[in-house]
Amino acid sequence: MSETKAYAAFNSIEPLKPFSFENKVVNSKDIKIEILYCGICHSDFHNVKNEWGGAKYPMVPGHEIVGKVAEIGSEVTKFKVGDLAGVGCLVDSCRECENCHDHEEQYCKSGFTGTYNGVDRKTGEITYGGYSENIVVDEAFVLKIPSNLALEGVAPLLCAGITTYSPLRHLKVGKNHKVGVVGLGGLGHMAVKLASSFGAEVTMLSTSKSKEVDAKRLGANHFELTSDLENVNKLKGTFDFIIDTVSASHDYNLYLSLLKTSGTLVILGAPPEPIQIQGFSLILGRKSIMGSLIGGPKETQEMLDYCSEHNITSDVEVIEIQKVNEAYDRLLKGDVRYRFVIDMASLKK
Amino acid sequence: MSETKAYAAFNSIEPLKPFSFENKVVNSKDIKIEILYCGICHSDFHNVKNEWGGAKYPMVPGHEIVGKVAEIGSEVTKFKVGDLAGVGCLVDSCRECENCHDHEEQYCKSGFTGTYNGVDRKTGEITYGGYSENIVVDEAFVLKIPSNLALEGVAPLLCAGITTYSPLRHLKVGKNHKVGVVGLGGLGHMAVKLASSFGAEVTMLSTSKSKEVDAKRLGANHFELTSDLENVNKLKGTFDFIIDTVSASHDYNLYLSLLKTSGTLVILGAPPEPIQIQGFSLILGRKSIMGSLIGGPKETQEMLDYCSEHNITSDVEVIEIQKVNEAYDRLLKGDVRYRFVIDMASLKK
Repeated sequence: MSETKAYAAFNSIEPLKPFSFENKVVNSKDIKIEILYCGICHSDFHNVKNEWGGAKYPMVPGHEIVGKVAEIGSEVTKFKVGDLAGVGCLVDSCRECENCHDHEEQYCKSGFTGTYNGVDRKTGEITYGGYSENIVVDEAFVLKIPSNLALEGVAPLLCAGITTYSPLRHLKVGKNHKVGVVGLGGLGHMAVKLASSFGAEVTMLSTSKSKEVDAKRLGANHFELTSDLENVNKLKGTFDFIIDTVSASHDYNLYLSLLKTSGTLVILGAPPEPIQIQGFSLILGRKSIMGSLIGGPKETQEMLDYCSEHNITSDVEVIEIQKVNEAYDRLLKGDVRYRFVIDMASLKK
Repeated sequence: MSETKAYAAFNSIEPLKPFSFENKVVNSKDIKIEILYCGICHSDFHNVKNEWGGAKYPMVPGHEIVGKVAEIGSEVTKFKVGDLAGVGCLVDSCRECENCHDHEEQYCKSGFTGTYNGVDRKTGEITYGGYSENIVVDEAFVLKIPSNLALEGVAPLLCAGITTYSPLRHLKVGKNHKVGVVGLGGLGHMAVKLASSFGAEVTMLSTSKSKEVDAKRLGANHFELTSDLENVNKLKGTFDFIIDTVSASHDYNLYLSLLKTSGTLVILGAPPEPIQIQGFSLILGRKSIMGSLIGGPKETQEMLDYCSEHNITSDVEVIEIQKVNEAYDRLLKGDVRYRFVIDMASLKK
């Protein structure tokens, strides 16, 4: 059996280092994917550093995976060797609960199996993610990757893309809607691109004027400084939806005040501290605050097909895997526009 | 000109006392209503005691008003003398903003004119409410009162009824929905009655076993103790909607955990302290927390007509106005099932 090369964290303190393990097609529905690109999600860093607890080492992070099918089990029907294929944040679920039946495996009642740092439902082994030469996943959780898009820009769609696509679709965001986006990072830049493509009038809400040029280039119709109180007053009651991608603690009442009657503030990032909101911020105007978590394979495929049709990819900076620790440092400083993606060919070096 | 007898608060400390003032039809659309019954809303107490600030004395509270038309202005078309008529929480609004155009005057962008402790948009005078012999209101804000219901039980529909009806309708609550109701008071008992009548499966969620008999009598299908942790675990992920009528601070994450995927927690009471919620309580399950405030005249009329058709009224204890201060004391202890209503004939004593 051949060895699979990867990069892994061995504890929460030291940098990621080379690691190798055996990886093979075991079950009849398994697909082995030779990984071409893997995005670096901010949650990779949180998990590696065990900031959310439950870290299992060695940990091979990565859940924005694009590659080619290298081998298939005997009963695989959706893919053949050589096909482009992708894997997102989940590789299995109970497949029996009402949420799984509703194609919302991300909300599986017994918890979905994470692409990495998860526990395989059959073997009990720890799952290894995309900072790796290959990955073996049941075809039910493998996505078809459109061939007309740059693959490095597709990888982040598997997490940042679906995380923003899912709530926008759930809320039926489209023409005649005014949408605010808070935070211009991996998620925020996809929220701007997707909401714009759905026909919404998109405003980038930021405390930093430096984001204006990029926000507009990405598709935002407007840019508004939220550090300017006079400007904020002007914006009160003007948005149907605000997509808040910031995971640090901040003032949620401010964004609620910017919503129209019956508007919704969508939070995609969760600070460790409780969110504090005044009851009247919700009551006066029938406003809502809603959370949302990634998406299931069906909706993720729908998103990929939509992006293919509308030529939407993530803006990325491609790096070699040897630079992954440096990328983590830069990620913490917000120094990336807007997603690092690892060129997995570098593993062969 | 004849004097209108009323009861008013003259400051935040002393009990309410008799008060009189002039009240007459001035504008061509004005309707003078001889008040028969007026409910005592918990917010009357908050306002009298200036707990929300902005109290204007003398204050004649009361916004759950049912009576008979005594006099009409020259251009009134909807009512004639002798008709039953009602007034709820608002008596005017800008009538020009998008919310007013959408018949959601309760969310008027310049603020609706409260039935009491408000400022008349034409005269600048303080509005006086329903603890009074009569009230003069523009016909656009006067409701038609069905004749088949006990009038004392109709009065609280004008606030407690519409406050619960509006979010239930906005969320299209009906058959195949499981609805939890938190708090069995003026709002809670109407939420149970209305949600049941819409065909939902209703569960009273309470920390006090003593509420079980009444909750079921009011229409709840189930009663569940939320002080029993084992019981709470059993209920996790089972409700489509939870209507939370409690205005004291409490654990919102608990109720969020009882919601199904995509469920909504509706808050109708706002504690003075910020509501604290964990981001993950919303994100893991695409859950929402939504506020809601009374309703506009159009929806209030729809609610009254619905209650007429389905024979729904509030459960009340009728008192004479001389007992209003005693009623306030009992209200604070939750000692009323479920709304005090003043028989305004007692004013003539």
